[in-house]
Amino acid sequence: MEYSYIGKRIKRVDALPKVTGEASYFSDVNLPDTLAGKILTSPYAHAKILGIDTSKAESLPGVRAVVTSKDMPRVPLDFALAHFNRRVDLFAMASDRVRFIGEEVAAVAADNEEIAEVALSLIDVHYEEIKAVFDPEEAMSPDAPVLYDDMESNVAVYMPGDYGDVEKGFEEADHIFEDEFKTQLQYHAPMERQGCICKWDMNENLTMWTCTQTPHLHQYMVATILGIPIAKTRVVSPYVGGGFGAKAHQAFPYHIISAVLAKKTGNPVKIEYSRGEEFSFATAAPSFKIKLKTGVMNDGKIIAKQAIVVEECGAHCYIATGQLLCSIFFSFAHIYKVPNLKYEGMVVYTNNPNRAVALRGFGNTQTNFAVESQMDMIAEKLGMDPMELKSKNMFEQGDTDMMGWHFNSYGLPECIKQSAESADWNEKRAEKSPNRGIGMAALIHACGFKGSFGSIETSSAVIYAKQDGSFNLFTDFSEIGTGVWTVVQEIAAEVLGTRLEDIQVSAGDTAFTPFDMGSYSSRGTFSVGNAVKLAATDIRDQIFEVAAEMMEVKIDDLESKNCEIYAKETPDKKISIAEVTHHAIMESGKILIGKGIWNTPSSLFDPFSGTWSNLGPTPSYLFGCQVVEVEVDPNTGKVTVLSVDAAHDVGYPINLDMAEGQIHGGVMMGLGYALTENLALEDGKVLCDDFVDYFIFRAPDLPEIKPILVTTDDQYGPFGAKGLGEATMVPTAPAVANAVYNAIGVRIKDLPITPGKVLKALKEKKRG
Amino acid sequence: MEYSYIGKRIKRVDALPKVTGEASYFSDVNLPDTLAGKILTSPYAHAKILGIDTSKAESLPGVRAVVTSKDMPRVPLDFALAHFNRRVDLFAMASDRVRFIGEEVAAVAADNEEIAEVALSLIDVHYEEIKAVFDPEEAMSPDAPVLYDDMESNVAVYMPGDYGDVEKGFEEADHIFEDEFKTQLQYHAPMERQGCICKWDMNENLTMWTCTQTPHLHQYMVATILGIPIAKTRVVSPYVGGGFGAKAHQAFPYHIISAVLAKKTGNPVKIEYSRGEEFSFATAAPSFKIKLKTGVMNDGKIIAKQAIVVEECGAHCYIATGQLLCSIFFSFAHIYKVPNLKYEGMVVYTNNPNRAVALRGFGNTQTNFAVESQMDMIAEKLGMDPMELKSKNMFEQGDTDMMGWHFNSYGLPECIKQSAESADWNEKRAEKSPNRGIGMAALIHACGFKGSFGSIETSSAVIYAKQDGSFNLFTDFSEIGTGVWTVVQEIAAEVLGTRLEDIQVSAGDTAFTPFDMGSYSSRGTFSVGNAVKLAATDIRDQIFEVAAEMMEVKIDDLESKNCEIYAKETPDKKISIAEVTHHAIMESGKILIGKGIWNTPSSLFDPFSGTWSNLGPTPSYLFGCQVVEVEVDPNTGKVTVLSVDAAHDVGYPINLDMAEGQIHGGVMMGLGYALTENLALEDGKVLCDDFVDYFIFRAPDLPEIKPILVTTDDQYGPFGAKGLGEATMVPTAPAVANAVYNAIGVRIKDLPITPGKVLKALKEKKRG
Repeated sequence: MEYSYIGKRIKRVDALPKVTGEASYFSDVNLPDTLAGKILTSPYAHAKILGIDTSKAESLPGVRAVVTSKDMPRVPLDFALAHFNRRVDLFAMASDRVRFIGEEVAAVAADNEEIAEVALSLIDVHYEEIKAVFDPEEAMSPDAPVLYDDMESNVAVYMPGDYGDVEKGFEEADHIFEDEFKTQLQYHAPMERQGCICKWDMNENLTMWTCTQTPHLHQYMVATILGIPIAKTRVVSPYVGGGFGAKAHQAFPYHIISAVLAKKTGNPVKIEYSRGEEFSFATAAPSFKIKLKTGVMNDGKIIAKQAIVVEECGAHCYIATGQLLCSIFFSFAHIYKVPNLKYEGMVVYTNNPNRAVALRGFGNTQTNFAVESQMDMIAEKLGMDPMELKSKNMFEQGDTDMMGWHFNSYGLPECIKQSAESADWNEKRAEKSPNRGIGMAALIHACGFKGSFGSIETSSAVIYAKQDGSFNLFTDFSEIGTGVWTVVQEIAAEVLGTRLEDIQVSAGDTAFTPFDMGSYSSRGTFSVGNAVKLAATDIRDQIFEVAAEMMEVKIDDLESKNCEIYAKETPDKKISIAEVTHHAIMESGKILIGKGIWNTPSSLFDPFSGTWSNLGPTPSYLFGCQVVEVEVDPNTGKVTVLSVDAAHDVGYPINLDMAEGQIHGGVMMGLGYALTENLALEDGKVLCDDFVDYFIFRAPDLPEIKPILVTTDDQYGPFGAKGLGEATMVPTAPAVANAVYNAIGVRIKDLPITPGKVLKALKEKKRG
Repeated sequence: MEYSYIGKRIKRVDALPKVTGEASYFSDVNLPDTLAGKILTSPYAHAKILGIDTSKAESLPGVRAVVTSKDMPRVPLDFALAHFNRRVDLFAMASDRVRFIGEEVAAVAADNEEIAEVALSLIDVHYEEIKAVFDPEEAMSPDAPVLYDDMESNVAVYMPGDYGDVEKGFEEADHIFEDEFKTQLQYHAPMERQGCICKWDMNENLTMWTCTQTPHLHQYMVATILGIPIAKTRVVSPYVGGGFGAKAHQAFPYHIISAVLAKKTGNPVKIEYSRGEEFSFATAAPSFKIKLKTGVMNDGKIIAKQAIVVEECGAHCYIATGQLLCSIFFSFAHIYKVPNLKYEGMVVYTNNPNRAVALRGFGNTQTNFAVESQMDMIAEKLGMDPMELKSKNMFEQGDTDMMGWHFNSYGLPECIKQSAESADWNEKRAEKSPNRGIGMAALIHACGFKGSFGSIETSSAVIYAKQDGSFNLFTDFSEIGTGVWTVVQEIAAEVLGTRLEDIQVSAGDTAFTPFDMGSYSSRGTFSVGNAVKLAATDIRDQIFEVAAEMMEVKIDDLESKNCEIYAKETPDKKISIAEVTHHAIMESGKILIGKGIWNTPSSLFDPFSGTWSNLGPTPSYLFGCQVVEVEVDPNTGKVTVLSVDAAHDVGYPINLDMAEGQIHGGVMMGLGYALTENLALEDGKVLCDDFVDYFIFRAPDLPEIKPILVTTDDQYGPFGAKGLGEATMVPTAPAVANAVYNAIGVRIKDLPITPGKVLKALKEKKRG
């Protein structure tokens, strides 16, 4: 099939606005009489609140409102995650007890930030400090302070599972590997900091400008928490300056506090975190401790696997349970065939300040580090090439595994092959230079995952035709940087046979977009793409109906391209789309409105049977393999990445530039995760304050990254396309770890791989 | 049928925002770096432009752009009216010739209005004055200067018609009445003055904030004139501060000039007329001269009618032809049965500055004055009560007349009866007080009129359901004061069985509303109401489908009220709408999107057969009758209106307060038209500058107005409702004129009825 736009290099619709500074973010919204909102947070990791006196703050000139938990709604902020967490633990403000340094205790709205800061200092909170716990394993010990009175321990969620007969598997195994891996907190580091502006109008409608990846879910949560009709709550999420998960699903305390302050004062209220405040706000990928036991046969076949996964969530679950689920089901249970497996997953409370929100990879990244590091160790032990070991344990296209996951497209073998070829894997493994090494890691992930929010996986789109054959297209997707506006523009233009500029995309405002789950879970191209394809097809069918009448041909005989509609059988019969839409709208009274509703054919996990009833959590999985070459300085321990060859199964690429861009971005985050990024804590306090303390890879820091797009033509994806975003960072860290091992023979099982850890390991290795 | 909201007194959704000043009009939009746009206009009524030198203006500091006709698009602004006018005559700027004082010649964009004003004074236009003509009858004389080189005369449009045998009718008639009537220019006097703000973005999308009654038609025109895709042209028409027709259909020169200036400078450009400038801009109901000849039998039956209607349009047709059509077909041909009729209608160019745009009544008001004044004279001559004369000549419900107009609902008899009763007509006619008089006039009008724009009469609406049973509803209707947002809220809430506050109405922004013709032609309640009813029914059906499954009942058995869905047969089975929409959206993957497309079943006028092929121009006509009591001071000639009893057939009222409000507003405009309003001209110059020169009736100036709503349950209207807006002012002026005659025995055939005219007539009467 020869496409006009699909699979080409098409300029992003948001390119010019972004490079010129025209693009407007929530913080650029300037409303008259906006007050500055500031939040007072707990200085203690664990304490009782005995009383709060706000009178001094209230009497400060320029202070318009002071609020505490008494002013906050009683609906828990995480009500919509209750089916996951089996409990709720998050409110807009602490009432009788604080559980981490940074927990919201009071807030003010004042004429400017300076007055607000002074007002915070005038609020007297009477605390009584109590014992805190900062390590998840300590938190599980019987004498640890328990964070919640309604619980007997700090284990918020316990999720066990057992498939086949794992004991028997280990008995049969020729080799057993047991390792422990540890991952750090990773901060999302979006260029745009968290914040929002809230404004109520005379009719009690709330408008909230904020940076959310999921406007409609956000609207649903904010309205429900505040107890107002959802349709009277408008969430405007214009351009979003990066999210990476931190801006998905959550109604954060500041959202509700801002709305309450705005209601109380009658003015718009803006709360915006400074970079330092955002580091302390501490959204992060949760840290994991993973005990991984694998039994393999002499030929490399995996026969049994067992894991204990401990996820530390800080003082509130947020979306930790979803991440636990993904951490177990992707890398642990599904990159490779595992006939017998057993796991125990736990989400554990501590008094640490991190908020366990989503981050690219969503749990999978953490487990993938463990699984793919251990696979390298197994290959080494068996004297096999890691590629060969992987091939021995792979699925095949069309397979359905014991949990019910079905692989309708399966690009993993091709990803391994192409990344290895691109990186000269065989040559470099055969002829090793000193202190240089090459490593490989593979992955599986999903595009959309039924159960990642609620029990649905849906998108929708609406499209209006104009008299001149141009179209207004609406989806809920805010542009968080993924390029989804360009993707849906291409899809609609391809279906309709128009020019790209004839498709005007509007998104990121719940006041005029139909429901969509939003931008997360690598679901944009797949789910929104499918919804837009359905909507475009719907309106194209309506246009063809009018055209068939005008042309006196059968509808089924029609095709459109280059803004014209042709009759296949009589190709000289043609008419422009503009003529048809003009005739329909201006002469026939036929207003053309198309809609597309996509409901991913997939199923929910049934914890009782341990299976998915149909297809698995998604019909379409992502696969990839990255090969990393490093050089390690044995004197300093510094790891320099020389190249990353990243092959990813995208089903079919909608836009080559943007797909490659995702790989660049994901590898960049993956390298930070592997080597430098760590939201370090001490006694429950965040130690990082800025990007000097917290080093992310910037463009000049990057090695050569070679993106390789593997095509598998997924039968469910729009034009065969699958997602990509998250997959791109998942295998980077283990590939780096494996390359480090290949370079200098030391195995680092604890991320990030800092020079200190490398030197220490080298010293231990020397010691024997 | 017991309704929850229909036919009640429901508070307007725009009430609070308007009375508190929160409502935002285009002029409230503040964009950074906005330039002031100012237009240089012709000081001559008729002149050649020999040259324009803009160099001095361009070099003035603070001037960002100077444009003349060379910078303007070559597409005529009235291209969309060409099928009416059979010609185009309007461009954004005059190029080689100006045809009226005030015609656009050049424009500047500057840092502020003061600089822009100075810059205008620095533009040198070299004119050569030529002979002008200001009277339409003079303009038709062979030696008059002809305004357009491509024409042989100043008759822009000539529209003759002949039904039955009018000559024979006059031969048979017992009495023949021949009268000449004259109407003045009426200015719309909206509180919000004309203007717009234009802004282009980096992707060459144009956003125009302006005060238009017809956002989607405006978008279509502006985009076509500028040659850009319609979907890339956004017309935002937030609250509109009154339109009355002046803001419908037109892309005015200033719209295009502002867009060109904004494109050229790269800045937003705002053009806003001061009140004085707006008087000179001179949008107005065109003035008519009507020669009316009527033959009647002794029993009062009309047997023949003939009219010559001369409409003066100034130098450009604008929408004069549509008004000519309505002036002939409503009052002249259709209040009463006319077995034989003949007409000649003409639209005539002059060098007057008025722009012949729509104004409430749209031509009908002018002719109604003639027809209903003459009916009063006929009744007097025949010694009949005017009521009796009207009754003799009325149609009946269900009648289809010789032109194909079909009266599915027909409230005229009831309107006459109820207005007369309310005003104590019989008593006051029988026992006349000195200098007091009572008069009556009836009318027919349409709600929506196929052919009033293009060949369509359509509306559409889209509705999204939220998880809590609230709804976002979209229509194109900007809120110009008619209350349509409240009307559609009521309709949707009634259909869905929700609370009013569960329906959030969004409108007035082409970026997120589906196509609609907009707010004019008394079509809001009827057409948009029907579209919203269809959309609400569509989404209700989707909700019922889910509910039926949940409740295990048949869909057809379901009803909804008070936010709950009941099974009719098993009334204890019920479920809340919120439960159903939550289940659908959050648990079943069913995103609920409804749409409603209304295409009025009516037909276009066929000038060849002189008939409408089906139903007439609308399926649903408006009827009304107003009775006015006046007192005339014979010494000063001043007419004081004592009361107006206005009965209008609204089909079925959606909102009693708002329907009555329409009557108050229409009568107010009608009284101004009857007595005080006159956009006076002298040698092609507007003499009015402010509301001291131009007297409109304000609230304290008004007599007692008694609105009477007559119900006829129209079969095509939503819940039986028809339109109302325009009808309310149409018969006021002839009712006043008839009352004046009844009071003091003088007949004024030339509006407005000023003290001077009354005194002169009294003098002539005395003289005999």
